Amino acid sequence: MSTRQIYLESLPRDEALNRLLTALDQVGWGPQTEVVPTTDALGRITAAPVRAHISAPHYNASAVDGVAVKASDTFGATETAPITLRIGVQAHWVDTGDPLPPGCDAVIMVEHVNLLDEGHGQGDRCEILAPVAPWENVRQIGEDVVATEILLPERHPIRPQDMGALLAAGVLEVPVVRRPVVTFIPTGTEIVEPKPDPAPGEIIEFNSRVILSMVREWGGQPVRANIVKDDYDLIRRAVKEAVATSDIVIVNAGSSAGSEDYTVHVLKELGQVLAHGVAIRPGKPVMLGLIDGKPFVGLPGYPVSTWLTADLFVKPLVYRALGLPVPKRPTVRASLARRITSPMGVEEYVRVKLGRVGDRLVATPMSRGAAVISSLVRADGLLVVESDREGIGEGSPVTVELLRPLSEVQETVVVIGSHDTSLDLMGSFLHRKSGYYLSSAHVGSQGGLLALRRGEAHMAGVHLLDAGTGDYNTSYVQKYLGRPALLVLLARREQGFIVPKGNPKGITSFRDLTRPDVRYVNRQRGAGTRLLLDYHLRQEGISPAQVQGYDWELFTHLNVAAAVKAGDADTGLGIRSAAQALDLDFVPVAWEEYELCIPAELESHPGVQAVLELLRDPEFLKAVEALGGYDCSESGRIRRV
Amino acid sequence: MSTRQIYLESLPRDEALNRLLTALDQVGWGPQTEVVPTTDALGRITAAPVRAHISAPHYNASAVDGVAVKASDTFGATETAPITLRIGVQAHWVDTGDPLPPGCDAVIMVEHVNLLDEGHGQGDRCEILAPVAPWENVRQIGEDVVATEILLPERHPIRPQDMGALLAAGVLEVPVVRRPVVTFIPTGTEIVEPKPDPAPGEIIEFNSRVILSMVREWGGQPVRANIVKDDYDLIRRAVKEAVATSDIVIVNAGSSAGSEDYTVHVLKELGQVLAHGVAIRPGKPVMLGLIDGKPFVGLPGYPVSTWLTADLFVKPLVYRALGLPVPKRPTVRASLARRITSPMGVEEYVRVKLGRVGDRLVATPMSRGAAVISSLVRADGLLVVESDREGIGEGSPVTVELLRPLSEVQETVVVIGSHDTSLDLMGSFLHRKSGYYLSSAHVGSQGGLLALRRGEAHMAGVHLLDAGTGDYNTSYVQKYLGRPALLVLLARREQGFIVPKGNPKGITSFRDLTRPDVRYVNRQRGAGTRLLLDYHLRQEGISPAQVQGYDWELFTHLNVAAAVKAGDADTGLGIRSAAQALDLDFVPVAWEEYELCIPAELESHPGVQAVLELLRDPEFLKAVEALGGYDCSESGRIRRV
Repeated sequence: MSTRQIYLESLPRDEALNRLLTALDQVGWGPQTEVVPTTDALGRITAAPVRAHISAPHYNASAVDGVAVKASDTFGATETAPITLRIGVQAHWVDTGDPLPPGCDAVIMVEHVNLLDEGHGQGDRCEILAPVAPWENVRQIGEDVVATEILLPERHPIRPQDMGALLAAGVLEVPVVRRPVVTFIPTGTEIVEPKPDPAPGEIIEFNSRVILSMVREWGGQPVRANIVKDDYDLIRRAVKEAVATSDIVIVNAGSSAGSEDYTVHVLKELGQVLAHGVAIRPGKPVMLGLIDGKPFVGLPGYPVSTWLTADLFVKPLVYRALGLPVPKRPTVRASLARRITSPMGVEEYVRVKLGRVGDRLVATPMSRGAAVISSLVRADGLLVVESDREGIGEGSPVTVELLRPLSEVQETVVVIGSHDTSLDLMGSFLHRKSGYYLSSAHVGSQGGLLALRRGEAHMAGVHLLDAGTGDYNTSYVQKYLGRPALLVLLARREQGFIVPKGNPKGITSFRDLTRPDVRYVNRQRGAGTRLLLDYHLRQEGISPAQVQGYDWELFTHLNVAAAVKAGDADTGLGIRSAAQALDLDFVPVAWEEYELCIPAELESHPGVQAVLELLRDPEFLKAVEALGGYDCSESGRIRRV
Repeated sequence: MSTRQIYLESLPRDEALNRLLTALDQVGWGPQTEVVPTTDALGRITAAPVRAHISAPHYNASAVDGVAVKASDTFGATETAPITLRIGVQAHWVDTGDPLPPGCDAVIMVEHVNLLDEGHGQGDRCEILAPVAPWENVRQIGEDVVATEILLPERHPIRPQDMGALLAAGVLEVPVVRRPVVTFIPTGTEIVEPKPDPAPGEIIEFNSRVILSMVREWGGQPVRANIVKDDYDLIRRAVKEAVATSDIVIVNAGSSAGSEDYTVHVLKELGQVLAHGVAIRPGKPVMLGLIDGKPFVGLPGYPVSTWLTADLFVKPLVYRALGLPVPKRPTVRASLARRITSPMGVEEYVRVKLGRVGDRLVATPMSRGAAVISSLVRADGLLVVESDREGIGEGSPVTVELLRPLSEVQETVVVIGSHDTSLDLMGSFLHRKSGYYLSSAHVGSQGGLLALRRGEAHMAGVHLLDAGTGDYNTSYVQKYLGRPALLVLLARREQGFIVPKGNPKGITSFRDLTRPDVRYVNRQRGAGTRLLLDYHLRQEGISPAQVQGYDWELFTHLNVAAAVKAGDADTGLGIRSAAQALDLDFVPVAWEEYELCIPAELESHPGVQAVLELLRDPEFLKAVEALGGYDCSESGRIRRV
């Protein structure tokens, strides 16, 4: 526990990195050479131009199966005046690759030789019907490569075919750039090695695995140090050991201010702080320094910050050590789906989902929480809000760095709207059966219709009860989308109260939600499940203020179930499959229609068609029903509104 | 030695592959699953959707450093009417990541808390100036991921961030697709393991290293079997062993017809031949079959054929075993520099060099020899001449599969023309100093000027002696290029007779070339060095017919030197550096000017500028002079013609 304040600088990213790179130049830190066997050199970077040791071929070799001759012995041969040669004297059988016998300088293909005697022994003769030119059908010494020729330039990544050329030229060892050793020291008293059942307060250490995997992909040699507790002396010892054995040292601060504090003081004692605090978000508390002429990087603890700052500050070090420029991620231009605001003076990195809807590529900003590692799994790209901008307006053209191949983005059906547990299942089936990817974002039914309206998605999952008519979805689609659409039934599903095993508070009705001992957990505004609650509260004349927890909003059925499972709430309204997934009990309230709303103009999209096909696929529907609380008997039904 | 003829089929490529894939479908050959530790799963392909084992976070965690409270205790607090809480009773110090103490449902950031007493022990009090909402500054259970949620779909390549999400969700092991084991059996009595000093007739075995490196890049597990001599029983035994331990078996035929024959008979005995002979070039004798329900591929022996057929037939098998589609190489559209002819009924794969000259991307076909592995090192792309075409005309738009990133192609200065050993050196220096790549092709001085004229190159190396004026290059540039150009002196260089050590035949003059005991080796038509010979022969009244070997043409100085070194010729005209490189002697004849001809409109190209700068760089010029026979005192001199 610590209340110490750390006052961070707010250096521009470029300046922070340049301070470190300049300091490294001054101490002569850079690529080192080692010699490795050519057969182990795949992917390594040449440290110097590589020259052929021998010529290839290294002797004059027959290029065909046939007889080797002295060309001048064949001059004048024609079909009418063939020349006869004695085998073993003037003509010598050779296979492809055989060396030319002494005195020979050409080969006649076996197809063009007439044998005059049986067998092929010494003393046989053959007949030649046409002359050959000197060196015809011969691979002369050095045809491929001449000894001393440069085979590969320096700073060249060795590919399979390069290995072949090296070996052909007798180069059995090759000077390559040594892979820099990058040691990652995880710190924090609260962090633990990955385990299936951590206790509350134990934080699973996975940043090292993420960052060191990146290091491996970049071409470095990753080394993971043991977890170090928040203790000045322990951290100092770990850093000293790492500096002695590594080219680059990373300390991953625990997430609390205290552990970060130890790290910067260790850096001050052992070396030199070059930057502490960079004007980026996430990732501000990054630390750059030099110890014994080696770069030291302190990465912040929240996983998205760790990932981003490693990309911004460790990647350039690894590539510097390899003598290569930092490769740029491919980018695309897209249209921003929703306004982003960002403080002046800070360069902000926003994760986005991309979708090709119609002929527009649309970038939808994702949650900006730095703790949510799953957002990096789902993100399609990164968008940078420059430090001199306060934000980017809706519809603006933006440049997005791709985290996923554009071809996959193009082949993705985008579903934005209400959450349903069957959507993940749909993603797996869709990809297996059609090759299309499914990307789903949970913003509630109304949010989904607005996303459709803005052209961000191909379809929206909706289950909006019209309190007036008792009908689902139709009136909302007309109101929020405002253009012709299909409503395709995914499934009927059961809504109800998610309660702990055994329903200890005996919740059976909406009236029970007003009891002082019942803590409710709600869904966000615009969610169909919230409308369902409101509908029933109105029916029963209950005011929201009477429901303890009405203002506590979570975004998915599973999050509601998790809150009940944890004991933070006694109940929440949600679908049966969420209760079943977390082994909770369920008090049914109503069956509802969960439909996919698809703008009519997208009906012919092949990915949309693949989804429609899936909704008639018995294998898929059976898997959905197995989730619990689904009735797929009419799945695939289409209504046009 | 064998004169047996193998009669090959000539199956279309698609049909041959489909026969094999269909047969594999019938026997149920496909992806297998294994479970690996998540920490070892980088790059592996998920075999099934992967679900979260626990929620992340798995407890309600403070998102900041501060005091945890029950939100309702803070309701009503304002700056003028603060609420005081007892630390340890109503308020509890927490660091980021700490679990919320029982009864708490929110955290107040340390910055917003006023301490009323010194120290932070039990019994202290703090003052709250504003209320907090329930769950404010709390990372609730499942904020990132809820237990049972699908984290990764099936057939997903695991990236660094995916490993983080898996570990965060308590997933310590993950089902992945097993990497298919691919065993490569090199065969041939003449082939030997790589060595620095092979004897004539020994062929260095490197195809296995090339193909198995490709297998590794595709995601398979490469296994190299020992070299097997051309012996039916030995090959059969090796194949049986490989089939028992592998998913895919490759036999690389020796280059002679005999060894290929053994392989097909072994395949017939042990399994089933599905295709033998495919209508492609190079690579026609490829063999596809099935043994014990496993795919068998016989690859031809010439290295370019081996590489191509592995790409066409082994790659689809590896990806089929991984459950992934075969990734397509990126392609570009380019303009074909020279006509290609190709037989009807054969799909021909032509290696090309690419160059961005002006605003055109130009594809120049390379040598089509299947034995030249170095051509795969130098190739920028592959061009396919479809089987129903007899060729492609000069200037036609073509689609080229890239073997090198397009960005590198764009940053390449293309030099086509006379060969000079300093060009390789220039490539290394240019890249190190400017980032530009240099691509050089040796077609002789005249060929270089014609390539410039067609817009295939940025510059041409020329050393063309005008017999009339004694001047170098000017008149030829006017004649062959026909538009304004710069002539930039690379260096003066010494031409002379390359002779064996000690000059055993005592060659000192052109007259010596007419001696019956002197075998000459010449350069190709259009080469400046050949013009130099012709000039001197004319001067001395010698007819070409008097020179033994006048018609024997090689393409580079180094090839000439190699022919002398091998004893195939007694001398050839060439530059001193070539003699020096192969430790030969040299009889000087003349100094000549080797210039780079650059069309005037390309002068401002930044890559061209970088070359001009290099020609004034003392470090580079010193390195050129060290090659021997170069005078760089006027290098960089520019003449405009």
